[in-house]
Amino acid sequence: QRQEDTSTVRQPIIPVAKQSLLSNIDMIANMQMSFQNEFNEGTYTRSRFVLNQFRLEIKGKVHEKVYFRFRDRYTRTVVPQSIDNISRSTDMAYLRFDPSPRWKIYAGKMSADWGGYEFDANPVNIYEYSDIIEYADNFLTGAGVGYVLPGNKQEFTLQLLNTRTASFYELYDTIPGIQEARFPFAAVVNWRGSFFGGKFNTIWSYSLFREAEYEYMNYFALGNQLNLKKFRLAYDFKWSNEQLDRKGIVSSFTDNVGLKTAQNVRYVSHWTQVDYRVSEKVNLFFVGMLDDALWKAPGKNDRTRLRTAWGYIPGIEVYPFDNFNLKVFGAFIGRKYTYTDEARQVLGMKDSDNYRVSVGIISPLVIL
Amino acid sequence: QRQEDTSTVRQPIIPVAKQSLLSNIDMIANMQMSFQNEFNEGTYTRSRFVLNQFRLEIKGKVHEKVYFRFRDRYTRTVVPQSIDNISRSTDMAYLRFDPSPRWKIYAGKMSADWGGYEFDANPVNIYEYSDIIEYADNFLTGAGVGYVLPGNKQEFTLQLLNTRTASFYELYDTIPGIQEARFPFAAVVNWRGSFFGGKFNTIWSYSLFREAEYEYMNYFALGNQLNLKKFRLAYDFKWSNEQLDRKGIVSSFTDNVGLKTAQNVRYVSHWTQVDYRVSEKVNLFFVGMLDDALWKAPGKNDRTRLRTAWGYIPGIEVYPFDNFNLKVFGAFIGRKYTYTDEARQVLGMKDSDNYRVSVGIISPLVIL
Amino acid sequence: QRQEDTSTVRQPIIPVAKQSLLSNIDMIANMQMSFQNEFNEGTYTRSRFVLNQFRLEIKGKVHEKVYFRFRDRYTRTVVPQSIDNISRSTDMAYLRFDPSPRWKIYAGKMSADWGGYEFDANPVNIYEYSDIIEYADNFLTGAGVGYVLPGNKQEFTLQLLNTRTASFYELYDTIPGIQEARFPFAAVVNWRGSFFGGKFNTIWSYSLFREAEYEYMNYFALGNQLNLKKFRLAYDFKWSNEQLDRKGIVSSFTDNVGLKTAQNVRYVSHWTQVDYRVSEKVNLFFVGMLDDALWKAPGKNDRTRLRTAWGYIPGIEVYPFDNFNLKVFGAFIGRKYTYTDEARQVLGMKDSDNYRVSVGIISPLVIL
Repeated sequence: QRQEDTSTVRQPIIPVAKQSLLSNIDMIANMQMSFQNEFNEGTYTRSRFVLNQFRLEIKGKVHEKVYFRFRDRYTRTVVPQSIDNISRSTDMAYLRFDPSPRWKIYAGKMSADWGGYEFDANPVNIYEYSDIIEYADNFLTGAGVGYVLPGNKQEFTLQLLNTRTASFYELYDTIPGIQEARFPFAAVVNWRGSFFGGKFNTIWSYSLFREAEYEYMNYFALGNQLNLKKFRLAYDFKWSNEQLDRKGIVSSFTDNVGLKTAQNVRYVSHWTQVDYRVSEKVNLFFVGMLDDALWKAPGKNDRTRLRTAWGYIPGIEVYPFDNFNLKVFGAFIGRKYTYTDEARQVLGMKDSDNYRVSVGIISPLVIL
Repeated sequence: QRQEDTSTVRQPIIPVAKQSLLSNIDMIANMQMSFQNEFNEGTYTRSRFVLNQFRLEIKGKVHEKVYFRFRDRYTRTVVPQSIDNISRSTDMAYLRFDPSPRWKIYAGKMSADWGGYEFDANPVNIYEYSDIIEYADNFLTGAGVGYVLPGNKQEFTLQLLNTRTASFYELYDTIPGIQEARFPFAAVVNWRGSFFGGKFNTIWSYSLFREAEYEYMNYFALGNQLNLKKFRLAYDFKWSNEQLDRKGIVSSFTDNVGLKTAQNVRYVSHWTQVDYRVSEKVNLFFVGMLDDALWKAPGKNDRTRLRTAWGYIPGIEVYPFDNFNLKVFGAFIGRKYTYTDEARQVLGMKDSDNYRVSVGIISPLVIL
Repeated sequence: QRQEDTSTVRQPIIPVAKQSLLSNIDMIANMQMSFQNEFNEGTYTRSRFVLNQFRLEIKGKVHEKVYFRFRDRYTRTVVPQSIDNISRSTDMAYLRFDPSPRWKIYAGKMSADWGGYEFDANPVNIYEYSDIIEYADNFLTGAGVGYVLPGNKQEFTLQLLNTRTASFYELYDTIPGIQEARFPFAAVVNWRGSFFGGKFNTIWSYSLFREAEYEYMNYFALGNQLNLKKFRLAYDFKWSNEQLDRKGIVSSFTDNVGLKTAQNVRYVSHWTQVDYRVSEKVNLFFVGMLDDALWKAPGKNDRTRLRTAWGYIPGIEVYPFDNFNLKVFGAFIGRKYTYTDEARQVLGMKDSDNYRVSVGIISPLVIL
């Protein structure tokens, strides 16, 4: 055998099994490239061409009841992770089994089924992620089960995943009084709903993470979408309460006063996207983001806000070809970070404001 | 040309050459994923989901007489090696030429043709490798020739390979009195035999490695398989005599007394697998391993045993789909390491005992 | 959606869109492998098998007017670059749009359109690159436009690219008095001509690089080819004037006297290749290279030569199969470096002379 498997038998020119595989499998180059001009505190700092994203994807049906999906980034160092063993560059490598038309079973490395329309989009369509998603581990290894209600309007998913890809010590180092959990898991419940003939849709989820013994994280993400003829409005509310600061945003502030890992942190996020499809070929959009970071300092009774991060992305997308999912975009991507007095005085943080003007191309390019 | 080759000419919808390529080429995702519960010295230590293996493979006929095979891991850092220049994550990248039906010529990076049924299996089917294979460089660059005897029951292969992918100094550092070889090669002779209509099979090999000037390694691997209707028994005997400790197991012990690279080392291994195919869908198996590590300490006349490593893997494999090579498994994977008095007293080693209980999925998934 | 795009709709066995993609897309394994025997100053130093090159390529038409090309090396560490964000192992990841038969628009990471037949060849066909190309960043991110003159004999290309993939500080460190540019670009103009029915061809280019504020690099590459029935002669002249030493060759000399980045450097290169196609199956070739490195030392008025690098590669290539682009080669690859008195006395350089004798296989193997 020489490490080969004997699963494949040869037949003459394009055997039927191959034809069926080929028709059911897609190879996709997910690309986002741009020429971007960067400004910091209102001053022009630099211009450059960037391949923001290049993720090669292979997916499709490999058997009547088995579906496969693999996606790998070429913009990230290939480093196998200490918990799940697979490279961090690999977003997904999973199998889906459909035992019946209503039930689905998932196993492998997959995108955690957080709710919200921002996270649910193909990453090439996102110009800048809001804080919670930007700093989360979104691709985790585990298993899941899905159930579609009769009528195909409601779907429920339950996932049990490793809570992270790296070990506790790699992520948090040692924290006095806190002990590593023996099974650090993330449990995710997701509901996808569709109402009024698809005019109103939801992706809601609740997740519980066990980060360490007696240390948990609770995460709600409630995505809502209004989908009219030429007009689409999405609004995601996200709320993450973290006994250990998993996102590391607050920890990056407290690091200034010698606290490597902050505890009792909360992130609250509002995200909205408005799309107005002017014509077949032209889409106008605006993305707005507002992310609050809160912290209960040691010895304090109350949680106080440290930072508000603003994001605003107006832009235009043009589809130059009919029936071909490739768009040319122009976007203004602004970010503004304002700190509270506490964060400024105690932690030494400073407000900042930057934006970039980008033009570029986006495509989930189907190459096979 | 712009760095393109003009080898390809276009024709209308699926030209015959493409049809033939497509029917002859396979793309395979070799996967082994599991949920594993780990125990150390009898104590439960942790649980996690692991993608034990993910190797993407492309192979097939690219011409009437030319065959190609490429396999790459996504569970290993991509690091080009100093001797053969190709990444360690790449298991194989070779060409095979068939000048006549009996002769085969190989060139490129390939799996060294060690004998034994453990090594010959697709890695996804292995739950835990025995010591010699676990610590060997199994994928080496070089050339080979194969000859099939009339009747197709016996095949002989001869390979000449680089003995390693990394340089002498990267592997052994400086050793007083030992000089790097100018051509550090591995020569491998392999015999595959089939008797009684396939009921009894063999994969035997002998390999000679030139690790440095006047420093050699001799390796025998004798694989034997009894293949009955529902019952299959494999037994591999492996014996590796190493003037420089290539596997590094003994060196990891002697490192405790300041000896970075041990010399005059021998590894002896017994491996067996019993499969009982209860039905079309269910296979019961047991794997047993026994690996001895011996060392002739400097100034001593005799080789003495330092460690015995035991392995025992009972388990069950279920094939849920007909005609589709995917199995769900449950396995108990035990390892026990017992050290001799010498190893304990002189080298400070301690016995250890660990096991894990795994359930998961294995498939060499044909995606194209 | 779960991060999927809805661009693909399913149809029965090999839908027409798939058939068209398949017939228009190629997957290619660009390989060069050899057994090489290395000599240094006339002394045999070592032998080894090497996978000199393994670049996997996917390219083709994905839409009537859109062409895609991706090429990735397995002989280089995967490290996303700080400027263009994509891994250095990825040679190309670009899109080409053909708005009309005469015009082409390029966007993404691509090979900079330097002139010259050496650079224009598929890298697997090159046994050793001359200095300027060996030490240049040849794969850059940006955009380009091409225009083919009526008659299809002349083509002009203009590219605007990032001047490098790494940041100024990663490449040059801090240099007193020199300030990073806000838009460090490379502008490349290329002309490809064909005369006398393809008997005489040219690839000429001029490039301007902005390496830092007020620091430029000017590069001319003039490639010329005489293409007769059995005989082909190519001659490339290359001239690169660098205010900051981009190639780093002179800097590697001046590093000996504490000057990390040399300034006011010039590289001049002559390269020629003669091919004589003895028969359908046999090609004899000779490659000659001569590369001069010049430097204007601080405080000096004149530029003086520091080194001359010679290259000479006689060899034979045999195509064992009809209509299949795979060749077996034998080549003698010699390099000789002679330093001027100044380089020897002031910078402590020493002449060197090495060669290798290689036999191997080259193929841009079309696997799909």
